[in-house]
Amino acid sequence: MDQLLKDAEKIKSLEIQGATNVALSAIDFLSNYAKRLKSGDIESCIDKLHKARDILINTRPTEPAMKNGLKYIMKKLQLQQPECNLEDIPERIELYKNEYHEMISKSKRKIAEIGARRIPKADKTFIVMTHCHSSLVTAILFEAKKQGKNFRVINTETQPRLQGRKTAKKLLEANIEVIHVVDSAMRWAIKHFQVDLILIGADSITSEGTVLNKIGSRLLALVAHEENIPFYVASPLLKYNPETNLGTLEKIEIRDPKEIWENPPKGIQILNPAFETIRRRYIDGLITEAGIFASSHVPNYFAKLYPEMVE
Amino acid sequence: MDQLLKDAEKIKSLEIQGATNVALSAIDFLSNYAKRLKSGDIESCIDKLHKARDILINTRPTEPAMKNGLKYIMKKLQLQQPECNLEDIPERIELYKNEYHEMISKSKRKIAEIGARRIPKADKTFIVMTHCHSSLVTAILFEAKKQGKNFRVINTETQPRLQGRKTAKKLLEANIEVIHVVDSAMRWAIKHFQVDLILIGADSITSEGTVLNKIGSRLLALVAHEENIPFYVASPLLKYNPETNLGTLEKIEIRDPKEIWENPPKGIQILNPAFETIRRRYIDGLITEAGIFASSHVPNYFAKLYPEMVE
Amino acid sequence: MDQLLKDAEKIKSLEIQGATNVALSAIDFLSNYAKRLKSGDIESCIDKLHKARDILINTRPTEPAMKNGLKYIMKKLQLQQPECNLEDIPERIELYKNEYHEMISKSKRKIAEIGARRIPKADKTFIVMTHCHSSLVTAILFEAKKQGKNFRVINTETQPRLQGRKTAKKLLEANIEVIHVVDSAMRWAIKHFQVDLILIGADSITSEGTVLNKIGSRLLALVAHEENIPFYVASPLLKYNPETNLGTLEKIEIRDPKEIWENPPKGIQILNPAFETIRRRYIDGLITEAGIFASSHVPNYFAKLYPEMVE
Amino acid sequence: MDQLLKDAEKIKSLEIQGATNVALSAIDFLSNYAKRLKSGDIESCIDKLHKARDILINTRPTEPAMKNGLKYIMKKLQLQQPECNLEDIPERIELYKNEYHEMISKSKRKIAEIGARRIPKADKTFIVMTHCHSSLVTAILFEAKKQGKNFRVINTETQPRLQGRKTAKKLLEANIEVIHVVDSAMRWAIKHFQVDLILIGADSITSEGTVLNKIGSRLLALVAHEENIPFYVASPLLKYNPETNLGTLEKIEIRDPKEIWENPPKGIQILNPAFETIRRRYIDGLITEAGIFASSHVPNYFAKLYPEMVE
Amino acid sequence: MDQLLKDAEKIKSLEIQGATNVALSAIDFLSNYAKRLKSGDIESCIDKLHKARDILINTRPTEPAMKNGLKYIMKKLQLQQPECNLEDIPERIELYKNEYHEMISKSKRKIAEIGARRIPKADKTFIVMTHCHSSLVTAILFEAKKQGKNFRVINTETQPRLQGRKTAKKLLEANIEVIHVVDSAMRWAIKHFQVDLILIGADSITSEGTVLNKIGSRLLALVAHEENIPFYVASPLLKYNPETNLGTLEKIEIRDPKEIWENPPKGIQILNPAFETIRRRYIDGLITEAGIFASSHVPNYFAKLYPEMVE
Amino acid sequence: MDQLLKDAEKIKSLEIQGATNVALSAIDFLSNYAKRLKSGDIESCIDKLHKARDILINTRPTEPAMKNGLKYIMKKLQLQQPECNLEDIPERIELYKNEYHEMISKSKRKIAEIGARRIPKADKTFIVMTHCHSSLVTAILFEAKKQGKNFRVINTETQPRLQGRKTAKKLLEANIEVIHVVDSAMRWAIKHFQVDLILIGADSITSEGTVLNKIGSRLLALVAHEENIPFYVASPLLKYNPETNLGTLEKIEIRDPKEIWENPPKGIQILNPAFETIRRRYIDGLITEAGIFASSHVPNYFAKLYPEMVE
Repeated sequence: MDQLLKDAEKIKSLEIQGATNVALSAIDFLSNYAKRLKSGDIESCIDKLHKARDILINTRPTEPAMKNGLKYIMKKLQLQQPECNLEDIPERIELYKNEYHEMISKSKRKIAEIGARRIPKADKTFIVMTHCHSSLVTAILFEAKKQGKNFRVINTETQPRLQGRKTAKKLLEANIEVIHVVDSAMRWAIKHFQVDLILIGADSITSEGTVLNKIGSRLLALVAHEENIPFYVASPLLKYNPETNLGTLEKIEIRDPKEIWENPPKGIQILNPAFETIRRRYIDGLITEAGIFASSHVPNYFAKLYPEMVE
Repeated sequence: MDQLLKDAEKIKSLEIQGATNVALSAIDFLSNYAKRLKSGDIESCIDKLHKARDILINTRPTEPAMKNGLKYIMKKLQLQQPECNLEDIPERIELYKNEYHEMISKSKRKIAEIGARRIPKADKTFIVMTHCHSSLVTAILFEAKKQGKNFRVINTETQPRLQGRKTAKKLLEANIEVIHVVDSAMRWAIKHFQVDLILIGADSITSEGTVLNKIGSRLLALVAHEENIPFYVASPLLKYNPETNLGTLEKIEIRDPKEIWENPPKGIQILNPAFETIRRRYIDGLITEAGIFASSHVPNYFAKLYPEMVE
Repeated sequence: MDQLLKDAEKIKSLEIQGATNVALSAIDFLSNYAKRLKSGDIESCIDKLHKARDILINTRPTEPAMKNGLKYIMKKLQLQQPECNLEDIPERIELYKNEYHEMISKSKRKIAEIGARRIPKADKTFIVMTHCHSSLVTAILFEAKKQGKNFRVINTETQPRLQGRKTAKKLLEANIEVIHVVDSAMRWAIKHFQVDLILIGADSITSEGTVLNKIGSRLLALVAHEENIPFYVASPLLKYNPETNLGTLEKIEIRDPKEIWENPPKGIQILNPAFETIRRRYIDGLITEAGIFASSHVPNYFAKLYPEMVE
Repeated sequence: MDQLLKDAEKIKSLEIQGATNVALSAIDFLSNYAKRLKSGDIESCIDKLHKARDILINTRPTEPAMKNGLKYIMKKLQLQQPECNLEDIPERIELYKNEYHEMISKSKRKIAEIGARRIPKADKTFIVMTHCHSSLVTAILFEAKKQGKNFRVINTETQPRLQGRKTAKKLLEANIEVIHVVDSAMRWAIKHFQVDLILIGADSITSEGTVLNKIGSRLLALVAHEENIPFYVASPLLKYNPETNLGTLEKIEIRDPKEIWENPPKGIQILNPAFETIRRRYIDGLITEAGIFASSHVPNYFAKLYPEMVE
Repeated sequence: MDQLLKDAEKIKSLEIQGATNVALSAIDFLSNYAKRLKSGDIESCIDKLHKARDILINTRPTEPAMKNGLKYIMKKLQLQQPECNLEDIPERIELYKNEYHEMISKSKRKIAEIGARRIPKADKTFIVMTHCHSSLVTAILFEAKKQGKNFRVINTETQPRLQGRKTAKKLLEANIEVIHVVDSAMRWAIKHFQVDLILIGADSITSEGTVLNKIGSRLLALVAHEENIPFYVASPLLKYNPETNLGTLEKIEIRDPKEIWENPPKGIQILNPAFETIRRRYIDGLITEAGIFASSHVPNYFAKLYPEMVE
Repeated sequence: MDQLLKDAEKIKSLEIQGATNVALSAIDFLSNYAKRLKSGDIESCIDKLHKARDILINTRPTEPAMKNGLKYIMKKLQLQQPECNLEDIPERIELYKNEYHEMISKSKRKIAEIGARRIPKADKTFIVMTHCHSSLVTAILFEAKKQGKNFRVINTETQPRLQGRKTAKKLLEANIEVIHVVDSAMRWAIKHFQVDLILIGADSITSEGTVLNKIGSRLLALVAHEENIPFYVASPLLKYNPETNLGTLEKIEIRDPKEIWENPPKGIQILNPAFETIRRRYIDGLITEAGIFASSHVPNYFAKLYPEMVE
């Protein structure tokens, strides 16, 4: 158990990053823990794994892909329980982890393909805007570029950790034109460049169709709303957090103030929220592996595609 | 003339900063130029000063306090023309400059006094939010603190030049409680702290009641509008730009991209707009030396208080 | 039949009140009617019960829980028809009534549990606002109190029948802090107390996700919208009115003017509408036994949970 | 002084009601006080009257017509000072009081005449809505009725003091058709009767064009805004509060909770705010003795018509 | 194949009009093509039919009823494939065409019946507004008229092809009162006649719930939104375009400029877009054969009712 | 008098068109009438002219430039009265008419100059949109073209009298690029071409800042508002209607239905409103000879520039 707690700490401390990475690592930690369970009957072992699962789940308030992955593993294990013996468990976890990984990969490819269709083939340069870094958003843009579409990307730097620079670099490597602005210039840029489409990723989605994403995303959604710019969120359905259906509130992670001001004056209070929520009314469509739809429909598609992960 | 051009360059290059400083320096440059005008009749001299005035006026697109000051000096000089001789001019300019400086100082004191009344005397802590640094906003807050009012200030860092840090330091020195956030957290902070009042400064005001201020201000105004938070701008009437009445468009200064990213990747385009415009519909009131009113009334109050500066 | 008409009258005249009460009484009336049906074949008996059902259904334009309950009973009876004989019917109705009652009770407990999660555990006092009296809303608040959550309730008196006083008393009995205002102060109170959440009940829900509730509810929803306050409706799915899907319009009950002014001056027209409708755009989420979701999804969840009641 | 304090108390305790009444009574109290000032030079006498004026002014936070009236009297007295002796003062106050009374009366007649033009001569019945009781609103409606215009009035009861009943009775006496609803039915009534015009009075107007009026007025303005119904405020310019221009905040009078619930349960907190504020954006026009215009222009018209009352 | 291309051209050139007509003609063309396929095995024949299907599908960017019909035919054929031989194919296509036709007819009757319920039985004349010509809208209005409902229709002329005149004539023939205005008077008419309900048809519906309809429809939706008028779209589910779920963008057909100006001056550019899109936020409800609901639910109902047409 | 009535009829029947033309013709009619007044004292003559003025004023509900012109003439005549004799009157009217004409011409030149500054000098083509025909709007665009500015104009045809075609021709003659669309495509065109500025004329302006202009203008203003496009009205101050300050409502002229449908089916009602009103909240600025400002300020500038025309 001690090792599991250490492993869990790695997730908690953000040593491991990126929704997919975190999900796969957590499953590995569960698998390793299973390996260390030397004796005992299968039932008590499953029981211990359940407790381990909950420890891992609680490391981060906002990582539904990890939570859904751990639930998927455990549900599959339980279905197998009668025919399963202790030694097989780590192997089985590995097997289910690969299945889960494949699910994520397939949905990413599908989303890139669907999302790229939203950028038209035209003479006039199409203007896309994004905020922060989302590997799904860049995947969509890479796909559109590969198809020879004519577009530019307006990109915000995303203080305090400047993930926008990562987005800029990735896009430039793919020969996509990038215009880079400070976060507070987002409205000015939308008007100045007459943005045609805004596209961001998601950290979590609730049963009401609310999206949780990097701080500044709700601000961008508000401007999109005022300026009547289509606002889309690209996300695998696995970012859906089924607990929200039962009333659980999403928690906003508050990060280290040092990220904002390293040597601040005495007495100041610095607050560094990592995310903010975007209500469904601001989101024109969610781009998922099940297609494009209003975000309030997420629970239905999730239940249809991933019945094993519904509670 | 050569020296005047050099002087003008100091304003252009932002070597001199702060609306009042810039205005007084420009008048000094005009005065020095007058001293260098050795001979000639009074009329041709006034004519030369007019040309010098225009050179100084054109150094910065957005410095109405300077423009209005130079116009004030010249108008006063012209009114004196018949009774005035060449040697007296520098002295007179000095005199009018002092008058102008006193006008600015008096209006600042008045605004601090009026603005402070907007923060209620109450047990419940009142939450004020500001963006960037405005000496008028801090003057209002100092005055309110002096009166023992109970309030806190939410403060944005204001990338890329971090003027928000200056605001934070000044307020902390006056023992005012400060909460500091990144710019993109402005909406989150408004909601989280249930902000009661937003208060910013102005760089320029147009005849329609549009305010030009630091990039991010319009974004903040939009959030204020959505959340129904009173949004006020503190500004002396001398920030009014009378040319806008004749259709002239305010220009947005685009600053050095290095301020945003020092060693950017090749091929990227970085845009660093210094200001953005806030339409009158987003501004609940303008706090000026003539009182608090809807921003569309600025031209009337300007004409009433400063008839010498109307064209 | 005469007795049934008398029984129906008791519902019509509002002698019986509260959605659950009305539903159970109507079923009792049907059961008593069945007992009085002495002879005849089973088919004609079912036929008569159907007619009786329709009489009961038509007593009140807005009581979907009663309508759905009567439909549930009749559908169950019909499914049993071949194996069923006349004498068993009252007993069976009793059985199904208990099933139906249990459904309602279970959904209430579930909703209380889910809804209570929306009130955070925090140091800062959370401000909830409600309007009129809903036993579901109070159940949620009781549950939250039991869990030690820190909140206060803003409560409107709800003219002309002052149901808000009932809410106030119930909450005070549970040691929940109550602030009581007149209906027209609802906007003032939302702003003054910086309400965090609005929570009301529902009398009926349509296929488009429109909620029918006590007069004043739509007004409150409008303020919530303007002030960006989360607005939730707690309701069992059994309040869904499936006929609206086929175009039937909800009728607004107009009640006795005496409730408003007992001795009004001659010639005046007094109108006393009991309800008003709230379009889905104003409702952030519906809190039901199937979870929390956008109100347009009600028909889907209803069909999934209660297939016996779909027409 | 003792008697003056007693007199002031009569205003404070709401023993005296109605803006004009209060204004005239306050002037009478000042006059009586002057009569009691037996000896002393004229200057010290004026000084004492000034102090008395301030005592009277401070009785009520929201009575600009009284404040403006007292200021008018004192300014007139001061202009006369050199030629004036002590004995004449009460007489002069009486004279100025009559002038002031005549100003109010004339402006009421003018407003009735202007306002009545807003109700068209047409076959189709025009629907006007009002809230609370305003003698100016009824004066407009009486004038329109006298001109044979075809209209009906939707009227809210205005809890907790039911001033709406007074409005209803007055209108019925003038043979104007009245439809009476509870306050919370205001939105329902606007939609149901397809209201053409909303018309209310004002208790005070600020330099920004904000109107203070009976609780529920802002709520009505919000519905008018949502439904795109013209929303007008009838008010003499003397309701303008010039202190607001200098930042002074309007105070909301909180009245006795007994008005709402006579025998409330223990532990409840009842709040009974008398007024609420309506921002200029919700007000289509102000109907004053100087014409109809956007409410932000009030200070200009006030200064033009009543230069003696500008500070 | 040559003949098929000629046939396809008839659809492309708009020689054939009306969604149902186009769908049935396209199926006929497919059937005729099948008849001309003389020899070959069944598999290669199906293959050829698939290609023919795609040629027909691509004639018009916005005809989902045709696309869905052709898909329906082919899917049915494929399901039959093993038991089917070449000669039977035309006959089978005829059979499925009749099935498809019957589906369309049944859904029209159902929609007329559901939609008519939205027009209340009342003394007060109900005001319905429509734009362009939709046979579904007129069917609803005919049904309401047949039921003796009391209503009038506001009708726009719908430049440049004046389909509004067709609507006017059809309604007048059914003795329905019609008020006819130019397109640009739509807002004026809504306000002047206090429209109660807006009802239009649809050319296509996307997976996000966006409706594509005649140019001017979005404009009308915007006015409806501003004036808070219920805005409904009547459409069979077969107008749903399943490709939009995969990201495909709806194309706006640009028609001949001669329709707008026959002999325009040289150098002018005339643009004649046939349709525009209405986002779901502007649509209160969709009236379909499956009932009335929020337009974002179209894909779910389509999949439920027409599983054969889901890709 | 008979001849005057005939002359008045020419204005009424729209035989004379264009605000300036109508104003000058009306003055001519007054002058001719004066010539026909053979004898009598000067006072009775002025009296008759006043009556004639009123007859002319009442020919058209919406022609403030004519009304203001006639008032100007009569006021000037009255000021001259003591020194004036009967024979001089026609000559004097001619003189004042020329003054008035010069006022109009000068204000047009000023507006063209001011308005043209709103179109920036830039590489990127600026997109202006207009509706109907306004000689002021074309004057602004001609001036901008003369200054070499880079812009295109989106132009609506303006049914039923197609004044948009006149605008198109005039602009093409000045080598300005024109894109022409039907009225109902206005929203589509704004979005498709990313319009930068909307510019229309005015038929009348009220004391509240409401503008009356061609039917469709309010619709365009609504789209501008939704899409956040600057919306400006170019108008001489002489279009201000001072009677609106006293409550007079603007009347909407309803024109011949034949303009819309020459041979309509029996029983149809065709309504052809010529104008609609745009509230000040939709108008960013008014471009007048006194500068650019919020439209609520019109009465102040009118009084300042044309004191002779204030009642």
